[in-house]
Amino acid sequence: MTAAVGNPTPLRDAAAKVTGRALYAGDYSFPALLHVKFLRSPHAHAEIRGLDIAAARQAPGVRAIAVGRDLPVTFGILPIRPDETAMAVDKVRYIGEIVAAVAAETAEAAAAAARLIRVEYRPLRAFLEPAAALAPCPPEERIHAASRHPSNLHKEARLRFGDPEAALAGSPLRVAAHFRFAGVTHAFTEPHATVAVWNADDTLTVISATQVPHYLHRTLAKVLGLPLHRIQVKKPALGGGFGGKSDPFPHELITAYLALRTHRPVKCVFTREEVFLNNRGRHPTEMDLALGCDRDGKLTGLFADIVIDGGAYSSFGVVTTYYNGVLMQGPYRIEPFGFRARRVYTNKPPCGAMRGHGAVNPRYAVEVALDMLAQEAGLDPCELRERNVLPADTLTVGQLRITSNGVRECLRAVRARSGWDARHGKLPYGRGLGVACGFFISGSALPILWNRYPQTVVHVKLDFDGRVVVFSGAADIGQGSDTILALVAAEILGLPLERVQVESADTRLTPVDLGSYSSRVTFMAGNACRSAAEKLRQAIAAAVAAEKGVAAAAIVFRDGQLVTADGQRLASWDEAVEIALAGRGAFVESGHYTSPKMGGDFKGAGAGLSPAYSFGAVVSEVAVDPVTGRVRVVKVWGAHDCGRALNPLAVEGQMQGSIHMGLGQALSEELVYQEGRIVNASFADYHIPTAVDTPEMDVTIVESRDREGPFGAKEAGEGPIHPVLPAIGNAIFDAVGVRLFELPMTPARVLAKLREQERRRG
Amino acid sequence: MTAAVGNPTPLRDAAAKVTGRALYAGDYSFPALLHVKFLRSPHAHAEIRGLDIAAARQAPGVRAIAVGRDLPVTFGILPIRPDETAMAVDKVRYIGEIVAAVAAETAEAAAAAARLIRVEYRPLRAFLEPAAALAPCPPEERIHAASRHPSNLHKEARLRFGDPEAALAGSPLRVAAHFRFAGVTHAFTEPHATVAVWNADDTLTVISATQVPHYLHRTLAKVLGLPLHRIQVKKPALGGGFGGKSDPFPHELITAYLALRTHRPVKCVFTREEVFLNNRGRHPTEMDLALGCDRDGKLTGLFADIVIDGGAYSSFGVVTTYYNGVLMQGPYRIEPFGFRARRVYTNKPPCGAMRGHGAVNPRYAVEVALDMLAQEAGLDPCELRERNVLPADTLTVGQLRITSNGVRECLRAVRARSGWDARHGKLPYGRGLGVACGFFISGSALPILWNRYPQTVVHVKLDFDGRVVVFSGAADIGQGSDTILALVAAEILGLPLERVQVESADTRLTPVDLGSYSSRVTFMAGNACRSAAEKLRQAIAAAVAAEKGVAAAAIVFRDGQLVTADGQRLASWDEAVEIALAGRGAFVESGHYTSPKMGGDFKGAGAGLSPAYSFGAVVSEVAVDPVTGRVRVVKVWGAHDCGRALNPLAVEGQMQGSIHMGLGQALSEELVYQEGRIVNASFADYHIPTAVDTPEMDVTIVESRDREGPFGAKEAGEGPIHPVLPAIGNAIFDAVGVRLFELPMTPARVLAKLREQERRRG
Repeated sequence: MTAAVGNPTPLRDAAAKVTGRALYAGDYSFPALLHVKFLRSPHAHAEIRGLDIAAARQAPGVRAIAVGRDLPVTFGILPIRPDETAMAVDKVRYIGEIVAAVAAETAEAAAAAARLIRVEYRPLRAFLEPAAALAPCPPEERIHAASRHPSNLHKEARLRFGDPEAALAGSPLRVAAHFRFAGVTHAFTEPHATVAVWNADDTLTVISATQVPHYLHRTLAKVLGLPLHRIQVKKPALGGGFGGKSDPFPHELITAYLALRTHRPVKCVFTREEVFLNNRGRHPTEMDLALGCDRDGKLTGLFADIVIDGGAYSSFGVVTTYYNGVLMQGPYRIEPFGFRARRVYTNKPPCGAMRGHGAVNPRYAVEVALDMLAQEAGLDPCELRERNVLPADTLTVGQLRITSNGVRECLRAVRARSGWDARHGKLPYGRGLGVACGFFISGSALPILWNRYPQTVVHVKLDFDGRVVVFSGAADIGQGSDTILALVAAEILGLPLERVQVESADTRLTPVDLGSYSSRVTFMAGNACRSAAEKLRQAIAAAVAAEKGVAAAAIVFRDGQLVTADGQRLASWDEAVEIALAGRGAFVESGHYTSPKMGGDFKGAGAGLSPAYSFGAVVSEVAVDPVTGRVRVVKVWGAHDCGRALNPLAVEGQMQGSIHMGLGQALSEELVYQEGRIVNASFADYHIPTAVDTPEMDVTIVESRDREGPFGAKEAGEGPIHPVLPAIGNAIFDAVGVRLFELPMTPARVLAKLREQERRRG
Repeated sequence: MTAAVGNPTPLRDAAAKVTGRALYAGDYSFPALLHVKFLRSPHAHAEIRGLDIAAARQAPGVRAIAVGRDLPVTFGILPIRPDETAMAVDKVRYIGEIVAAVAAETAEAAAAAARLIRVEYRPLRAFLEPAAALAPCPPEERIHAASRHPSNLHKEARLRFGDPEAALAGSPLRVAAHFRFAGVTHAFTEPHATVAVWNADDTLTVISATQVPHYLHRTLAKVLGLPLHRIQVKKPALGGGFGGKSDPFPHELITAYLALRTHRPVKCVFTREEVFLNNRGRHPTEMDLALGCDRDGKLTGLFADIVIDGGAYSSFGVVTTYYNGVLMQGPYRIEPFGFRARRVYTNKPPCGAMRGHGAVNPRYAVEVALDMLAQEAGLDPCELRERNVLPADTLTVGQLRITSNGVRECLRAVRARSGWDARHGKLPYGRGLGVACGFFISGSALPILWNRYPQTVVHVKLDFDGRVVVFSGAADIGQGSDTILALVAAEILGLPLERVQVESADTRLTPVDLGSYSSRVTFMAGNACRSAAEKLRQAIAAAVAAEKGVAAAAIVFRDGQLVTADGQRLASWDEAVEIALAGRGAFVESGHYTSPKMGGDFKGAGAGLSPAYSFGAVVSEVAVDPVTGRVRVVKVWGAHDCGRALNPLAVEGQMQGSIHMGLGQALSEELVYQEGRIVNASFADYHIPTAVDTPEMDVTIVESRDREGPFGAKEAGEGPIHPVLPAIGNAIFDAVGVRLFELPMTPARVLAKLREQERRRG
C-alpha cells in the first residue's frame, strides 16, 4: 500500500528555500518598480496638528506620498469595532506608528524624502502601563476616545462555572500567586514585505508575506474601496509567521494604495527594526491565579484574574482575552472554574496573536501552580497531573467538547523517557527536572467572519498529464501545509507524492481558506482536501469500472495503480486517467470543511471553541548556576498528541521549534520599553536562543486518532509550546528550590530569587 | 439585457500592451538567470565531422554547453515521422540551423563563447530548389536519408472527385496558368523568447512565446525524457504569432534542457535575424491550375498540380500539403475536382503554418483563374462568382460539410460598397477594381494527437468575491481569445465583463486546449466556455430557486442581476453568489468541445476537415503606375462571414490585419535566398507594408449565425486574408490589363508584364 500519510516527508519548499531559489515577497520585482518607505511617529501619544509634505513631494525620485487622510477607513482582523487605520489620521498612538509613506524610484530616495516630511505634534499623556491605563480618564485623554469604557480598557471577558472563589476558600489545599510575563515577539526570519501591482485591467495584485491572504483581500477591498473581484492576494514563499503575519497590516494597505495611485508596481520591505515596531507579539501579562486540590490531589477549583497589555490597537485582542481564560479549563478536570480577563490599550506597538495564542502565559501559571499544589499535597507532580487529566470524549467544565485525548500517553511518555521517577527530586543541587502539560485548539470552530460559507474549500484538478493539482487558499507559512495537502491527496489516490502538486494561497486562483492561524489548516483544509480527493477517486473508479466491467467500489488505488480487492491489476494511474478523462477532459472536484455543530449543551462563550483539541506534555531538565543565576536547559522531552502525524517529520519539526521558541520566552526574550520606545529592536539586543543555547530534544508523537480529523490528525504547530515554559520553571524549582513567577527567567531574576531564598533561610 | 457578446470590446490585454506593462517572455527574470546563445550552421547541407567545445567551456561566465547529441530525440508538431532534433546531430540541413548552445552569466558571454566552438564540416550537395530536390538521388545525398521516397519528396497528396482532366478537356471554356509564389514569413513584432526554470521540486517551468503550450509541453516531455506531470508551460503576453509560434521549437527545448542541466533559470531571446532563420513561414510554391466553365459561367472542373518548398524539416508540412489542395473546393461548387500536391525538402529554413495556412496561394490561383474565365465568358467577375457559390447546409465535392455560409452576402456587400457595378472596367487606365472570395476552416476537426480527450476544456470557477474565473489552456496570441472567453461567460451569466477574469495558457493550472492554430479557438474554446458557463448558471439558478421558491428555469440572468421572466428582481449577482456558495463554497464547472462526427458520406481525406467554414469577399482598388510598375492599393473593401462577431472590434481588427498582411505578400514581401542563405533577414530588407503603404479599408462583418458555433460564431483570424491577394491581382488586370502569375507583384514584375503586353500589342 502506498503510504503517503504517516511518512516522514521533507517539506515541499525545503529544497527551494535552502538553495536560495524560493521567491519571497521581497524577491518579486517588476519593471518600473517603486519603493515605499515610511515616516513613523516619534511620540507614544500625540495629536497631529500639521503635516507638510511639500518638500518631500519635490524630492528627487518621489512619485507619490500617502498620509492618514488618504486611507481613513478603519480596519482590523476582527470585525468587532475595528480601530486601526493604515496611517495615523488625527493622532499617533505609539512610537513607530506610520504617519506617512513615500513611493519613490529607489528605497533610498523614498527614505530621504520621508525625512523631509514635517509633522507638528502636540504630545498627549502617554499610557505606558496597564495599571495606569485602566484608571478612568476623560475621553479626550484616552487612547481611543470612542471606547465604550470609561478608561483605556479594550475588552473584559468574565466566565464562571460554579463558584470558584468559594470552592477555593474551602479547599483543603490551595495555592495562589501573581505572575508577570514580559511581552515577546515572533522573531521570524523574513521581514514583512509586500509588492503591489495595479494591473492594466484595473485589478490589483498584492504579493505579500501574509498568513491570511483572505482577510487581507477583504481588508484591501474595504480600505481601498475596491470591489472584491478586482483584488488578488498571493502569498509567495514565506519565512516564518508564528502569528506575526496574521493581521492585515498598514504597510500592505499603503503599498497597494500607492500602486493604485501611481499605476506602477510598488514594493515595501521592512527593516528588522520595523518588524519589531509592527509587533503583534504576545501580550505583556499580569495574572493572579488561585488553584486548589483536595488531599488526594483532586483539583477543587481555579480562578484567575488576568490583565493583558494590548498596545495601541485591538488586533486579535478580543480573542486573546478569551483564550487567556478559557484555555485553562483543560487538559485537567477543574470545577468550579472562573476567570476575569481584561485587555488594556496602551501607547505601545499592538500585541496580537503569537504561537500558542493566548494560552502560553496562563499555561505557565496553571502548571506552576500545579507543581506548588503537588508539593503541598506531597504528590509527585506527574502523579497529580495524571489524577486530574480529562478523558477522551467528554465535555470540560465550560462545555468544550473534547474528542480524542492523548494527554495521559503524553505524560507517561515524557515521564518514562526522561527517567522522571528515578531522577525527579533526586538530582544534585543546581540540577532539576520539571513537568507540565499542554492543551490547545485545533482550529477555531467559529470563523472570524459570519457567513454561510465553509471555513475552507479545496479543489482538485485532474488533467491528461496525470498530475493532480490541489487548489487551496491555505497559506503555507513554513509549517508545511502544502506538503500536508499533497500527502492527503496522494494517500486517497494511492499515488506517489510527486504526482500531486499544490497551488495555494492565491485569492484569484484558489478557493477560500481562512488562513494560517489557530492551528486550523491541517484539520480543516486537510479534511476538505480529503473530501475533494475522495470525490476524484470515485469519479476515476466509476469510469474505470464502466470500462473494465468491474464494480467501482471494489477498486483499490495503490502504488500508482488501480487494482481489484484481490490485487489484480486493472489499470496504471496513467491508463486510469485516460479512461476517466475520455470524452470530457480535465475536471475538478471540490471538497469543503465546516466545523460541526457541537454536541452537548453549550451555554458558555467558550462553547464550540474548536472541533478538536491537542494535548501534550514536556519534561525539562535544567542546570542552574547558583552563582550567576544562569539557567541552562540541558534536555527537553516533549510528547504531543497531534491525533495522527500526517507528516511525522513536520510534526517533529514543529515540536522542536516550539521547544526552541518556548525556551526563548522562558529564559531570554523580552521586549524592553523605555518611555514607550522599544529599545532592543534588533536581534543583537532581543535574544532568541542560538544553536548553542538550544538543548537536546527528545520528541514523542502520540497519535490519538481523532475521529473528525483528516486520517485522525489534529494540530501540531502551536500546542507543543505550552508545556515548555512551565516545565522549565518547575525544573528550576527542582534544581534550586525557587519559583519564578516572572518571565523571562533571566539570570538576574533567578539570582534575586536565590538571594531571597537565602534571606528567608538565613 | 446585458449584451456582452456582440459589443465592440477592447482586448483585455490592450492597455497592458500599449502602456508597456505587459510581461512578454523576454521580460521574465529570475535570480541567478543564465542566458543562452546559439552557434548556427554556416552551411546549407554538411556533415558534422567534429565538434570541439573545450575552448568555449573555459570561456568566462560559461555554465553549460549543449550539442546535438545531448538531445537526439526527434520531434515535430505532427506525430507523423518527426524529423527534427533540438540541435543538428550528424549533419546540418540549412544555414542557420542550431549546432550548439551556450548558457552563460550574460548574453554577451554566451555569444562570445559560442564563437569559440569549433565545428568541422564536410559540405554536402545542397538542394536549394524543389525541382532539383524532386529528382531521384541516392539516400546518402538526400536531406533526410531515412525518407521513404527515392528523392527529397516529403509528402505527396492526391485527391480526385470525378475526372477533372477529362471534364476540363471537354469544357466550353477553360483557362490554365502556372503560378509562382515566393516564400514569406510572419514578421510578428515580438521575437521568439523562452525562459526555463528548473524548480527545486524537480519540476520544469517553461515560459515561452508559443501558440501551442500543450504541444510544447508534450514535446518537452518527449525530448527531455521527463514525465508530463513534471512540466508546466506558460504562455505570457505574446506579441504576434500568425502561425510562426505554433511549432515546438529547438530553442525552447534547448533552453529547458540547459535549465535542467544547470539547475538555474535560463533565458533565450532571439535576435530578429534568428527569427527569420527560424522561419516556418508560407511555403514557396509553384502551381499549375486549370479551371473551366460553361457558357453560362457554371464551373466545369478544376485540376491543380502543386509543389511546395518545405525547407529542411517537416513542421506542419503534411497538413500544408493537403490544405493547398482541399481548400480549393470552396466557396464554389466545382465538380469534378482534383489535385496533386507535393512538399519537397530543401536545404533552407523550414516552412510551416502561416495565417491562412495552405490556402492563400491556391486561393490566389483559383480567383485569378476565375477572373480569366469571366473575361472569356464575357461575364462580370462578381456575377460569375455568384453563379457558382455553394449554398449553406451542403456538402462540397470532397464531402466537406458546409453549415452556415454567408459568401453571397459577402460578395454582395463588397460589390455594393465599392461601387463595383458602376466602376469596374470603367476606370481610367492605371486604375482598377478586382474581386475575390475566400473560404477557410474554423478549426481542424481532427486533433493532431489521437486520443479520447476533447479538443478543448474550459473550467469556470465561482468564489465569494463574485468573480468568475475562466480557466482555459487557449493561448491568446494577440487575436483576443481571452477577451472572447470572458465575453462568452459574461453573456451566459448576464454579467458586466469586468466580473469575468481569464486564466489561460498555463499547462499546470488550466485544462488542455490544443492551441492557437487553424483558427480554432473561438469556435472550440468558445463552445467549451459556453457550456461551462451554462452549467454554472444552472447551479446558481438552482440554488437561488430553492432559496426564493421560484422555478430555476424561469430565472433570467441579466445586468448583474437575477430576475424572473416578468422582470421581478430576485437577487443581485453578489446575493446570488452567496446563496449558491452557501454550505459548499467555491466551485468549478467544466465544459468541453469535441468536433461532431460529420454527417454525410465522407470518403475523402478531406472529410470532416472542420466543424464550420468561414467565407469572405474582397474588392480592391489599385492604382498602377505604368512607368514604374508600382502598384498602390487605394482602398480595400472586405466582407467576412465570421458566423457571429462575438467581439466586432476584434473581428474588424482581424480583417484589417489580414488586409495588411495580404497586401504585404501580394506586393512586397519575399524571403530572398542566395545559395540557401536568407539575404534579407531584417525589417530593413524584408518589406512589410508601412502605415503609408496601407490603404483605406472598409470592412463589413457578415453574420451567418452558425448553428454549432458559440452564439453562431466562426473564425475571423485567418479567413479574411485569402481574398486580399487575388483581389489585388485582379484589380491590376482591370487597371492595366496584365495578369500577374508570380508573387510578390513587385514593380519589376508588373513592369515586365507591361512590356510584354506592349511587345504583344506592338
